[in-house]
Amino acid sequence: MAIETTPLNVIDAETLLQNWQGHRRLTRRVIEAFPEDKLFSFSVGGMRPFAEMAWEFIRMAVPIVEGVATGKWKEYDSGSKPASKAEILMLWDLQTAQLNEKFPTLPPHRFSEVDKAFGQWEMPGVVTIQYAIDNEIHHRGQGYVYLRALGIEPPHFWERN
Amino acid sequence: MAIETTPLNVIDAETLLQNWQGHRRLTRRVIEAFPEDKLFSFSVGGMRPFAEMAWEFIRMAVPIVEGVATGKWKEYDSGSKPASKAEILMLWDLQTAQLNEKFPTLPPHRFSEVDKAFGQWEMPGVVTIQYAIDNEIHHRGQGYVYLRALGIEPPHFWERN
Repeated sequence: MAIETTPLNVIDAETLLQNWQGHRRLTRRVIEAFPEDKLFSFSVGGMRPFAEMAWEFIRMAVPIVEGVATGKWKEYDSGSKPASKAEILMLWDLQTAQLNEKFPTLPPHRFSEVDKAFGQWEMPGVVTIQYAIDNEIHHRGQGYVYLRALGIEPPHFWERN
Repeated sequence: MAIETTPLNVIDAETLLQNWQGHRRLTRRVIEAFPEDKLFSFSVGGMRPFAEMAWEFIRMAVPIVEGVATGKWKEYDSGSKPASKAEILMLWDLQTAQLNEKFPTLPPHRFSEVDKAFGQWEMPGVVTIQYAIDNEIHHRGQGYVYLRALGIEPPHFWERN
C-alpha cells in the first residue's frame, strides 16, 4: 500500500534535538511556575509531586543520550536528589548544555540500532530518545493540572523559545 | 560545532506515523477508561473534561494531515460534536484508518515546506504533525490525572500496541 519504496526521512538529528530542547525550555518554565513548597508537596489523585517528575526527566535525559551514544547504560549519578527548586534548575541547565554538546556526537548508526536501554527497554536508539521526550511531555501535562488546581496559570504549551 | 555537515536523518515518515498511531492507541484506551458521565463532566482545576480534549485531537489529526498534503487548511467537518463515548470512539477509529490511508500519500517535499497551518501556525509540515502528536500526549497526560483523581488506574504509558 505504501507509495514510498525507500524510507522517506522527515526528521533529522538536529531537528529532533531542537524539538527536545524546545520542550525542555517549556518544562523549565513549568518548574519555575510552582511555588517552592508546592513543587515538592502538591499533587492530585495520589500522584507524585512535580519535583519528582522533574527529577525523573533529569535522570533520563543525559543518561539516555550517553547510552545511545556508547551502548553503556548507566544510571544517573549526580549525588543526591535535589531538595530545592534552585537545585533542580541548576541540574536542568547543566543538562541543557550537556545535551547540546553530546547530541551531535551520537554515532549515526546508533539511532537505528536496536539496543536494550538500561538493560530493560529494547528498541532503536531514536525510539528511546523519542520516549524520553514523550515521557516529559506526558508528565509535564500532569504538572499543568497541578498548577491549575493551585490557581496558577501555566505557561503556553505552544511557546518553546 | 556540529560533527555532521549534512542533515543526519533519523526518523522516516512511516516511523512517525507508527509513533503517532501508537500514541493514538493509548489515547483510545484512556478514553475507554473513563466512565461515560465522567468523560463529559469531570475535570480538575477548572479545566476541560477529557471528552473535550479528545474532540480537539479529532479536529486536529486528519485536517492537519490533509493540510500538509494539499496546502488547503480546512476545519474538521463531521457535523455535530460527539455526545457519547461510543461516538468519540467511532470517530477515533475512522481517523485511525484515514491516517493510515492518507499519511503515505503525503508529498515528500511537504514535510519540510513551511506553510501556515489553518492560516495561523507557520512551520514546516513535519513540525505541524509533530505538534499534533505532542498536543495529544500533553492533554492525555492531563486525562491521567483525572483518572487518578477518580480512583481509576490509567493504562500503562509505555504500552502502545
